[in-house]
Amino acid sequence: MRLLIRNIKTLAQVETGAERKSRVYGQDMGTLPCLDDAWLYAEQGMIHSFGTMDTLPAELQADETIDASGRMVLPTWCDSHTHLVFAAPREQEFMDRIKGLSYEEIARRGGGILNSARRLNETSEEQLFEQALQRLEAVIAQGTGAIEIKSGYGLCTEGELKMLRVIRRLKEVAPIPVKASFLAAHAFPPEYKENHKGYIDLIIDEMLPRVAGEGLADYMDAFCEKGFFSVEETARLLEAGLKYGLKPKIHANQLHRSGGVQVGVQYNAISVDHLESMGEEEIDALKGSNTIPTLLPGAAFFLAMHYQPARALIDAGLPVALASDYNPGSCPSGNMNLLLSLACTQLKMTPEEAIHAQTINGAAAMELEQQLGTIARGKKASLILTRPVPSLAYLPYSFGENWIERVIV
Amino acid sequence: MRLLIRNIKTLAQVETGAERKSRVYGQDMGTLPCLDDAWLYAEQGMIHSFGTMDTLPAELQADETIDASGRMVLPTWCDSHTHLVFAAPREQEFMDRIKGLSYEEIARRGGGILNSARRLNETSEEQLFEQALQRLEAVIAQGTGAIEIKSGYGLCTEGELKMLRVIRRLKEVAPIPVKASFLAAHAFPPEYKENHKGYIDLIIDEMLPRVAGEGLADYMDAFCEKGFFSVEETARLLEAGLKYGLKPKIHANQLHRSGGVQVGVQYNAISVDHLESMGEEEIDALKGSNTIPTLLPGAAFFLAMHYQPARALIDAGLPVALASDYNPGSCPSGNMNLLLSLACTQLKMTPEEAIHAQTINGAAAMELEQQLGTIARGKKASLILTRPVPSLAYLPYSFGENWIERVIV
Ligand SMILES: [Zn+2]
Ligand SMILES: [Zn+2]
Repeated sequence: MRLLIRNIKTLAQVETGAERKSRVYGQDMGTLPCLDDAWLYAEQGMIHSFGTMDTLPAELQADETIDASGRMVLPTWCDSHTHLVFAAPREQEFMDRIKGLSYEEIARRGGGILNSARRLNETSEEQLFEQALQRLEAVIAQGTGAIEIKSGYGLCTEGELKMLRVIRRLKEVAPIPVKASFLAAHAFPPEYKENHKGYIDLIIDEMLPRVAGEGLADYMDAFCEKGFFSVEETARLLEAGLKYGLKPKIHANQLHRSGGVQVGVQYNAISVDHLESMGEEEIDALKGSNTIPTLLPGAAFFLAMHYQPARALIDAGLPVALASDYNPGSCPSGNMNLLLSLACTQLKMTPEEAIHAQTINGAAAMELEQQLGTIARGKKASLILTRPVPSLAYLPYSFGENWIERVIV
Repeated sequence: MRLLIRNIKTLAQVETGAERKSRVYGQDMGTLPCLDDAWLYAEQGMIHSFGTMDTLPAELQADETIDASGRMVLPTWCDSHTHLVFAAPREQEFMDRIKGLSYEEIARRGGGILNSARRLNETSEEQLFEQALQRLEAVIAQGTGAIEIKSGYGLCTEGELKMLRVIRRLKEVAPIPVKASFLAAHAFPPEYKENHKGYIDLIIDEMLPRVAGEGLADYMDAFCEKGFFSVEETARLLEAGLKYGLKPKIHANQLHRSGGVQVGVQYNAISVDHLESMGEEEIDALKGSNTIPTLLPGAAFFLAMHYQPARALIDAGLPVALASDYNPGSCPSGNMNLLLSLACTQLKMTPEEAIHAQTINGAAAMELEQQLGTIARGKKASLILTRPVPSLAYLPYSFGENWIERVIV
């Protein structure tokens, strides 16, 4: 299959020749390399070549030619943090919160992660797979071209394995790369409420060997937060994961400055995610690391909590990524276009910064930066073709508008 | 054309027989009358009858029958406050604000309403019409079934008349009701910066007679706000409008407790809109009135300002309406589905309250409550058919998801 896209108004996030940058963006997030009046040629799903229209080779033959007059082409979004496999939405808890119930009260009534865990353990692998596949197809139609999905609603050996097998089936059928994170350390199940060590032993001694044995996970995740997993417990889990080759990628600093960022950096985590609560120490820890700070403003929006300090992180030269956190409790949306608007309007990221954060930096937060995240020769032809739009800034500006004409993955 | 919709999972916002309530909701916004497992039959675009499936007449004949299994049917959204006719988006100012420029600074650089006015006066009526029609079609596809559109980017006689003629053309071709508000008092044009009386004289003595003479407007609007039109200036404008039969429908209390609510109530305004800044006095004034408090959370979201005190208004028994404020400066979105999510997540309105606010109360804010806003015999068959969804609460909960299968207007 040979695809030629002609007359592209703006081809965004390009890498050319010497300046090839298949790496995360930190220092230069504010500038987005673009070509105006451009063409792009792909073969067998890979980007073969591109340039400005005056350089289009006359002899180029394609099976499909798209005239993109007035339209832009971007690399697809790389969503590096989701909980897309779940058994049921939780709109009842959403109503309870509107009516003023606290998270603690909702949890006491059986809500929260434990609610999702109960529902998941009642649902067959087949049903979970069908629902998750529908959600995956919906987010691909909204421009997602790579996705990470976590376990963590099993909270028991069989439940966690079931979730990870669903993710493996998604990997097999999805037209986009899918990464799996093992997040048994999402919450303590009721029977281990007073026996943290017991649950962590279970994860390390029973679950991890089976997860690794079946090759079900790419990353080791833990919810490092006051009232959930302590820094010491997180460290023990990450060390155990590393023994099985699972690199860390963790939940940190959502509600408190919990030490999550530092323990993530200490174990060379691919990313530390959430980061609503940050100070100088956390920023300093990240500065000397390869760990990608990943912000999840969708959850802050949905819960009407305070947003992540994106500007402080970017101004410190850190390669910020943005991800959806798609999950039934705190962010029932995987729409990365709306996320772009949230990042610009609420986090005060510029459109260029937010596009970097959702493409190459998101790709790097899944170790996919050599395959995705920019327009570069040899990378996947995983593309968003917009409708006619006046500028790149128009994309986050026109929030709630569907400006995608076609997603090519 | 006879339309039958069968097997509707939930038919929402119904009015039956004796309890027919083609009126605004104040005291009872928290309860949404619904029928489960329902049918609806429409003839010539009007709702003829509806009920639960066990009451479906066997002899009912239709030209089209829809099986709505698993799906919900709601009345379409009534968007009672927009500035949908404009010449160009203003994403450059959006970027300037991200970079930290204040509104005042942007205005000094020629931005804001005056930017839109300059662009509008350079654009032909034909072009304005074509663009506005596209936007109107886009919001209808997102479920809008009636809309109010304001002038106010002309700020001179010819410009204001041009805008209102565009709105009249939209009325003629649109498949939904369109109302027009005359908002020359949106801002002071530069040449009248120091001569407020001169501009108000121009509006009253020159514009109003022509607007009324051509029958171009339904309502009289003014931006009553510190630094814009004072309470006294607003009063003079509203009085003049009333002489020509234009009822008031005004912008009030966006930035300050400006007295806008009270002057609106004093002149029996259909609605007072914005209401970010409210106190006891304003709520008391509204309590004794027929004026509908209309909230525009989209602008508060886009500008990352504080939201309207919806709970205080609802708890006072006021018939709150929600509208998009679709405009190129402070809310470049007319998506009423996302507005529903904003209302629930940020304003802490329940799904039932928000649906009331966007249907019957929005209809009343355009004097369309006898034709639209509920499912009732003899009202327009202006309907949103959802995709399969688990509950009404799921609609605001799943923010950014397109859960509309079809809009029937
Ligand atoms: Zn998460
Ligand atoms: Zn307005």
